[in-house]
Amino acid sequence: MTRFRICLFGAGEMATTHAMNLSADPRMELAFVVDPSAERSGALAAATGARVVDTDTAFGDADIAAYIIATPPRTHADYLQRAAQTQAHIFCEKPIDHDIDRARACLAALKGREAYVQMGFNRRFDPHFIALKQAIGAGKIGTPEQVLIISRDAEAPPVAGFIHSSGLLKETAVHDYDLIRWLLEDEVAEVYVMADALINPDYLTVGQIDTTTATIRMSRGTHVTVLNSLRAAFGYDQRLEVLGTLGQAAVGNVVGSQLILSTQSGVTGEKPHFSYFQRYAEAYRAEILNFAAAVADVAPVTPDAIDGLRASEIAEAAILSMQSRRPISL
Amino acid sequence: MTRFRICLFGAGEMATTHAMNLSADPRMELAFVVDPSAERSGALAAATGARVVDTDTAFGDADIAAYIIATPPRTHADYLQRAAQTQAHIFCEKPIDHDIDRARACLAALKGREAYVQMGFNRRFDPHFIALKQAIGAGKIGTPEQVLIISRDAEAPPVAGFIHSSGLLKETAVHDYDLIRWLLEDEVAEVYVMADALINPDYLTVGQIDTTTATIRMSRGTHVTVLNSLRAAFGYDQRLEVLGTLGQAAVGNVVGSQLILSTQSGVTGEKPHFSYFQRYAEAYRAEILNFAAAVADVAPVTPDAIDGLRASEIAEAAILSMQSRRPISL
Amino acid sequence: MTRFRICLFGAGEMATTHAMNLSADPRMELAFVVDPSAERSGALAAATGARVVDTDTAFGDADIAAYIIATPPRTHADYLQRAAQTQAHIFCEKPIDHDIDRARACLAALKGREAYVQMGFNRRFDPHFIALKQAIGAGKIGTPEQVLIISRDAEAPPVAGFIHSSGLLKETAVHDYDLIRWLLEDEVAEVYVMADALINPDYLTVGQIDTTTATIRMSRGTHVTVLNSLRAAFGYDQRLEVLGTLGQAAVGNVVGSQLILSTQSGVTGEKPHFSYFQRYAEAYRAEILNFAAAVADVAPVTPDAIDGLRASEIAEAAILSMQSRRPISL
Amino acid sequence: MTRFRICLFGAGEMATTHAMNLSADPRMELAFVVDPSAERSGALAAATGARVVDTDTAFGDADIAAYIIATPPRTHADYLQRAAQTQAHIFCEKPIDHDIDRARACLAALKGREAYVQMGFNRRFDPHFIALKQAIGAGKIGTPEQVLIISRDAEAPPVAGFIHSSGLLKETAVHDYDLIRWLLEDEVAEVYVMADALINPDYLTVGQIDTTTATIRMSRGTHVTVLNSLRAAFGYDQRLEVLGTLGQAAVGNVVGSQLILSTQSGVTGEKPHFSYFQRYAEAYRAEILNFAAAVADVAPVTPDAIDGLRASEIAEAAILSMQSRRPISL
Repeated sequence: MTRFRICLFGAGEMATTHAMNLSADPRMELAFVVDPSAERSGALAAATGARVVDTDTAFGDADIAAYIIATPPRTHADYLQRAAQTQAHIFCEKPIDHDIDRARACLAALKGREAYVQMGFNRRFDPHFIALKQAIGAGKIGTPEQVLIISRDAEAPPVAGFIHSSGLLKETAVHDYDLIRWLLEDEVAEVYVMADALINPDYLTVGQIDTTTATIRMSRGTHVTVLNSLRAAFGYDQRLEVLGTLGQAAVGNVVGSQLILSTQSGVTGEKPHFSYFQRYAEAYRAEILNFAAAVADVAPVTPDAIDGLRASEIAEAAILSMQSRRPISL
Repeated sequence: MTRFRICLFGAGEMATTHAMNLSADPRMELAFVVDPSAERSGALAAATGARVVDTDTAFGDADIAAYIIATPPRTHADYLQRAAQTQAHIFCEKPIDHDIDRARACLAALKGREAYVQMGFNRRFDPHFIALKQAIGAGKIGTPEQVLIISRDAEAPPVAGFIHSSGLLKETAVHDYDLIRWLLEDEVAEVYVMADALINPDYLTVGQIDTTTATIRMSRGTHVTVLNSLRAAFGYDQRLEVLGTLGQAAVGNVVGSQLILSTQSGVTGEKPHFSYFQRYAEAYRAEILNFAAAVADVAPVTPDAIDGLRASEIAEAAILSMQSRRPISL
Repeated sequence: MTRFRICLFGAGEMATTHAMNLSADPRMELAFVVDPSAERSGALAAATGARVVDTDTAFGDADIAAYIIATPPRTHADYLQRAAQTQAHIFCEKPIDHDIDRARACLAALKGREAYVQMGFNRRFDPHFIALKQAIGAGKIGTPEQVLIISRDAEAPPVAGFIHSSGLLKETAVHDYDLIRWLLEDEVAEVYVMADALINPDYLTVGQIDTTTATIRMSRGTHVTVLNSLRAAFGYDQRLEVLGTLGQAAVGNVVGSQLILSTQSGVTGEKPHFSYFQRYAEAYRAEILNFAAAVADVAPVTPDAIDGLRASEIAEAAILSMQSRRPISL
Repeated sequence: MTRFRICLFGAGEMATTHAMNLSADPRMELAFVVDPSAERSGALAAATGARVVDTDTAFGDADIAAYIIATPPRTHADYLQRAAQTQAHIFCEKPIDHDIDRARACLAALKGREAYVQMGFNRRFDPHFIALKQAIGAGKIGTPEQVLIISRDAEAPPVAGFIHSSGLLKETAVHDYDLIRWLLEDEVAEVYVMADALINPDYLTVGQIDTTTATIRMSRGTHVTVLNSLRAAFGYDQRLEVLGTLGQAAVGNVVGSQLILSTQSGVTGEKPHFSYFQRYAEAYRAEILNFAAAVADVAPVTPDAIDGLRASEIAEAAILSMQSRRPISL
């Protein structure tokens, strides 16, 4: 059995998740781990049998079949541009870069390569959302007319948590923007965003907001509402529903157990999962195995770098709308 | 418009419910109220325009079109036997009598009359159970194989509450026995009951139990389980499900409002209604209007006195099973 | 018992519903019915014991304690202005008038009167929404941050159905605008509406749209999204949810029966009620009995005419936003 | 890292599931596979790197740390008795044997060994049932009074499928009997079973039944009902609920996706999983990793062989009850 040598950038929770999930494909060999923290990279290397190397070694090894970039967002573009100089396949977490021009430059650098690039839009691999997309494809609800995405974190970060963050719209809502492009197989024509710091007004001091309500019109006319918030006190709130000409398809929150307690306080089920690692555990596994299959079988993948750019362009328009208080056409 | 003069025995909560519901049929005139408590009967008479009379006056008035017996169970047989001497229609709360021989004597007394008798098995008029019966009738689940009835009160009475009671099986479970006869359109062939005083062992001192698990085989072979208890701490627990050859039809508990609260404690809905007056409000209304229609239109009604006797016979067998610790054939 | 003589304008489904519900308060006497259709008014008069009269007789009788206006929307203002000349209490269906200036003129005419005016915003009387408002009031979810209202009819009318209609925003969405004012006890500060004719593009030929997505910012900052549509193929889709600092309170759709069928096709519950008469049956009863209590007990009522005007002003801003494609401040 | 050499008896679906799940513990090495079918064992060996050996080789290798017996039920006792002669740990699918005396002989043979035996009662490792047991342990519902287990296969086998089967009570219901012992931490005192061939009367020709309703009284008095059937047309029907003094804890069916379709046909969710491999996938994984931990860490395990015998003794009493049509004490 030929084994494909993989190099992983990052050794944090996201990178570790990818490394563990990758081990389910025996054709993949995690060869290198690159991370500024010797402690973190050492631990991940020990657990996986990989070797800790520096960036130059990582990019200098012509036997690396694929690079997985699971580092903080502000570093993605650098790694992408160096990886673009190789023949290897690339998996890159979203977004490509905070700066839309820099994201476009990455796309330019990647142009003409034969190897594949897969962006880390994990929600496309969630079995619940896949079931919903299949139901639409099968004509169960007719033509989509009005879509609702609710996407809220369980716990808002402290103000300091925003130091290196490009904010709710560029880092979190891009997932939702990608989701609707994939789900509806259509492009965003216009976006209007109302945004405020309702959870923590101090966010405004670092130029951030925590609650956004976005109204989107797709090219084919479908209305989309995206409700984002940094805090749903009851858990990671991830819902999606689509009204079509014949009915509605909806996916609600996912809970850890089906236990229902009925007492004098009411009839109580578990609250939804707390984090994206729990809620999207299956999706993370499926996306990286999808990438592994692309590496091993040389089969094209989505979401690709263009999908990554499109989602960032919508986020860019969303921010412009928020600032100018008017709808923005794309 | 001809108005039919009705005489009501009882002025408690059940009788008051019937009186109020009856007012929705303008053809009915509540003429007489009979109750040993002058205070109660006076209040009900004032609220309805009826007149308080004694039993002899009630039975001596040939213009009474119907008697409604909503008094304590131990008095039903007396009223039934006197009403049997008249030409009037009769609505009687269940059971006919604690004593099965006396119940049979009532049936004998009612034999050959032209007027109708309707027994107060309200659950036959519950819209949820009716929808379930219709689904079965429409073939949605094929032939019934295994039925489950859960029927539990919200709050167990004190030991003293059993002084005039014939107990869980004769007073409460008869509802369930009637329900399965109506639902399956079949008769009980065999019953096995396991009974204990798990909620309050002191019930045993007055010959009562509080928790029963009954296993029934119908004539056509269908299995039925009836779980009864005097206390479901979360509310009046009334559920019914039927497994058939093609699937299952089920009715769960009914709640007062659809409000769902999602907090760090979980996802919580309201607990079920507390009492049968709340849970079966629609059924009580429908059953008495069904009786009113029978009175006005001279149309036959069910459940009738024979249904009342059948349910009591099953309860009698259930008690014999409990005492002898073996299944009893009917 | 003093009986209060009521005059009802209208004899259609809404008027008939009010007449029937009113009969539950024995202090109310439906004295007059006024309707251009002799057939309809005759039928309603026959069923209720009321007398069919013309408008002048209706307004000329000084013994009328209250006028109920349940006629087509375009006629409300005329009746309101004549009723304003009397001492009687007034119940008026929404909206006051299509034309906001005319609605303001009605308010002016009503100014200084001692009698009460109640607007027909029935949803304020829905037990589910009341439970939700009480939960918020009790602090169960903390301070509201992001509200979602989904309010869709089950079946879109033909183009001809719009001949006398002021459209989705002025006739239907006003209910939602009133609902959020009542629920949040706050005023709308800004509204942005995206609107299209997705169900039936021919609506555009009569200047109408069928699908709207509205984004609202309240004075205290709360975000509100209102999704309206003229067709949810699965039933009258009426949902409301509020995310607060401590969690979420939500009310989903209401179904006719709890029956659940589990077959090889899936696990299926009933679809929601088809019409507002079914879904809001309890709310219609409660609102008219609330008005009856105001008439009999001379107790102030809400929603009043100012609430009616406020909701129409929001609808006016919504239309301006739709046309100008920008958010409108109130 | 020391690796423990494991020998697997069986190469069917159950054995393959165990082999795959075992690979998640890097300390375990699947050394041997034993199966009469060279094709099946060869395939499993190829997929896992194990070697196909015969029974004598398997039991003759003193380096085997553990035997996993996942063969047809009628062969368990033979393998158990040979494994009992070794020092290795044993994992054995249920039941020990159809014949209760033979099961007891196995227990005798295992007596005095230092190595552990774990029986394959996977439901003890289901996260939903564990959550339920924890809720009871935490006092959420008080003292259990009335328990309901519904446990039905999705599809009944043909009559020929019973040739080597010991039937519904000994092969399937033993799971439920073990579940209640584990859940209630109590022993069965009495069992009454009503059993029929309602799905396929031809089962009677081979001495089998397909529908059973069992009533159990535990030593501490708790009532337990177990509804078994070979066919719930809508899927593998696995539910559990416990009424206690303070309320109820319940686990319903588990579905593959949260997708809800609302159309004119109703509001439809997915039907439950079809097979135990889907429904209990997590439980199978957890039970074998629990066994692996016992092997590696020399930590005692449950359910053990005595649990296996107890469940079979209850099944034995259940069959006696079915045949004698009376309750049987244990």
